[in-house]
Amino acid sequence: MQTIHLKPKEQRRLLKGHLWVFSNELQAVPGDIAAGETVRLFTHDDRLIGTGFYNPHSLISFRLLSRSGEVPDREFFKKKIVEALALREKIYRLDDTNAWRLVHGESDGLPGLVIDRFNRAVVLQAFSAGMDRHLPLVSEVIDELLQPDAIILRNESVLRELEGLPLYKEIIKGERSATMQTIHDAGISYEVDLYEGQKTGFFLDQRENRRIIRSFSEGAEVLDVFTNDGGFALNALRGGARSAIMVDISEETLKRAEKNAVLNGFENFSLISSDAFDMLGKMVEAKELFDVVVLDPPSFTKSRKNLPTALKAYKRLNKLGLQLIKSGGFLATASCSHHVSEEDFLAAIHQAALAAGKQLRMIYKNAQPPDHPVLLSMPETGYLKFACFYVTD
Amino acid sequence: MQTIHLKPKEQRRLLKGHLWVFSNELQAVPGDIAAGETVRLFTHDDRLIGTGFYNPHSLISFRLLSRSGEVPDREFFKKKIVEALALREKIYRLDDTNAWRLVHGESDGLPGLVIDRFNRAVVLQAFSAGMDRHLPLVSEVIDELLQPDAIILRNESVLRELEGLPLYKEIIKGERSATMQTIHDAGISYEVDLYEGQKTGFFLDQRENRRIIRSFSEGAEVLDVFTNDGGFALNALRGGARSAIMVDISEETLKRAEKNAVLNGFENFSLISSDAFDMLGKMVEAKELFDVVVLDPPSFTKSRKNLPTALKAYKRLNKLGLQLIKSGGFLATASCSHHVSEEDFLAAIHQAALAAGKQLRMIYKNAQPPDHPVLLSMPETGYLKFACFYVTD
Repeated sequence: MQTIHLKPKEQRRLLKGHLWVFSNELQAVPGDIAAGETVRLFTHDDRLIGTGFYNPHSLISFRLLSRSGEVPDREFFKKKIVEALALREKIYRLDDTNAWRLVHGESDGLPGLVIDRFNRAVVLQAFSAGMDRHLPLVSEVIDELLQPDAIILRNESVLRELEGLPLYKEIIKGERSATMQTIHDAGISYEVDLYEGQKTGFFLDQRENRRIIRSFSEGAEVLDVFTNDGGFALNALRGGARSAIMVDISEETLKRAEKNAVLNGFENFSLISSDAFDMLGKMVEAKELFDVVVLDPPSFTKSRKNLPTALKAYKRLNKLGLQLIKSGGFLATASCSHHVSEEDFLAAIHQAALAAGKQLRMIYKNAQPPDHPVLLSMPETGYLKFACFYVTD
Repeated sequence: MQTIHLKPKEQRRLLKGHLWVFSNELQAVPGDIAAGETVRLFTHDDRLIGTGFYNPHSLISFRLLSRSGEVPDREFFKKKIVEALALREKIYRLDDTNAWRLVHGESDGLPGLVIDRFNRAVVLQAFSAGMDRHLPLVSEVIDELLQPDAIILRNESVLRELEGLPLYKEIIKGERSATMQTIHDAGISYEVDLYEGQKTGFFLDQRENRRIIRSFSEGAEVLDVFTNDGGFALNALRGGARSAIMVDISEETLKRAEKNAVLNGFENFSLISSDAFDMLGKMVEAKELFDVVVLDPPSFTKSRKNLPTALKAYKRLNKLGLQLIKSGGFLATASCSHHVSEEDFLAAIHQAALAAGKQLRMIYKNAQPPDHPVLLSMPETGYLKFACFYVTD
């Protein structure tokens, strides 16, 4: 196994639990190490930090796997996945939910690997060259531990391009039909298409947050903007909402949301296919009012340099949403932008409230659900912000 | 009504939603305004900010009541309390819980007033001279809206001394027997003594957090440190914990925890009366191990200048707690110190984990429950930090 060395003093972050080394923190690296090769990392004075994946093409040059020098073999992956599985099996009961993230990359000690479990199927994503090489081994271990009907690779994230990896998707176990699963979560069923659906087929990270809005949805008229699979609207309806409008720009997505609403026997819903900002603007002009407005937009920025633009978009979106809420109603609002801190996000909402002339009482503030754990040593493992507000004039 | 004026530029924080004026932000104030008198506040150039309570004895010289110039009469209190009640009645169903904070001071637009509702009794606390004057009126409004069997004043907080107010408690409606209530929350009953119990008789602010630990308590051996009424331990037992040890320094408190455990039919619990740090240290020495450790200490600092000492105490406490957790177990840990930010608190836990040699995955991070809402414009309204971690070696 080849070895690489840190520059002096560059071990500090790693010793506090971080798992990445950036290219500028390394001494000259032997030229014959291939992208994704497993190497040993040492400090400048030859103390072992651990084994990990090296990639000469990525700004994140090294991702730490093992501080005790383990190699990423079958036993290693099995140990890590069993540990990750133990957490999910302790937290989630199958009669309550049968869909969760089994491995959340770095947070579960498997840098660049995401594994989502949807009932009888499993979806894998690799975000690092090193993990990409090991996907066959990972899928063997998953097959042994879970015996799913289907295993699907959804290697389509543009983040793979930063690692010099191709974008593709592939069913590596099972028939196409087995990649269509019906999942259930807190008494709501969803049909998911793990081969054609967005990302890994379904957004698992809002599971707990979707449930929370039930507590203030009884009798409410609900507007669910960026509804995707309809998750927030369906939970509001389960919580006794009088009506729910599901908004999404994609007709195809709305068909899925509609299918899910019908599957669960709901009738008091409607669908609007529109750009969210356009539609909210028109509703404000028409002086429409709702009891509950949900804003769960896609990421507004993939880079730190666009942060000011993203924060303006959050402010504008939340101002529009707040203008549509009756006095005594509720706002549920989220941000999944990695580069937007919770502090920035809440400040944008505060500005939106001042601009809309509304009083806000924050009644919930959540980060990620337990199947998307966060490392205190690595802020990069956190990305989701969610808050609910009681809104008065 | 007398008037007071801000110095130039001191209106900024108020215009962004804050409700306090500090003594150094005011121009010379007429000498004949009494503590707790209602006054009109103007900018230096005579624009009205609003009406509020003035107190010459407090660093917080002015607390804003109404930006439209309302006076604190019966109608004003009724409107504010009805609005606060509407939030709680939307969020909480009586069959799920019959105890919640009805008014959380500034967050509910009633600076310095706390109202807690426990089944058929209501507890009031005033923290400002202005609110203190209006307690008779507030209790009349409460009586009209809720018709409780008992209304109790628990004006014993040392914060009252900062306002020049005396410390006392008093039953202003009902018999002593009516100040003993049995409350229920998520299927657990508690006997509370609203005249003799700590603070307002029961800690409501951990309601949602106590429920969360059920999700990882099945079959667990649980150590609940600073157990108080036993809330965390009882929720763990309801979640299927194999055993729970309840630790508190006060024998009297432990008697209450024991009574609650018996009231709910639990048998697999034990009680330890000890200083928490001493006991944890001894357990670490004896190499005891638990599946779940709960750390819910009282505030470690009442002032900002003691922050470094408080953070050291959080680090020490959490290090001890972490050393007692089996690999694959859970830590639930809280801070109710006003002056400790979430960032500081999480950093202290991170340091504790490094010192204890444990890996932490953060699976929950909560602020205050919906009956203790937070104003984005006023960080002082937030104080509770709570997080849960999956702990591995």
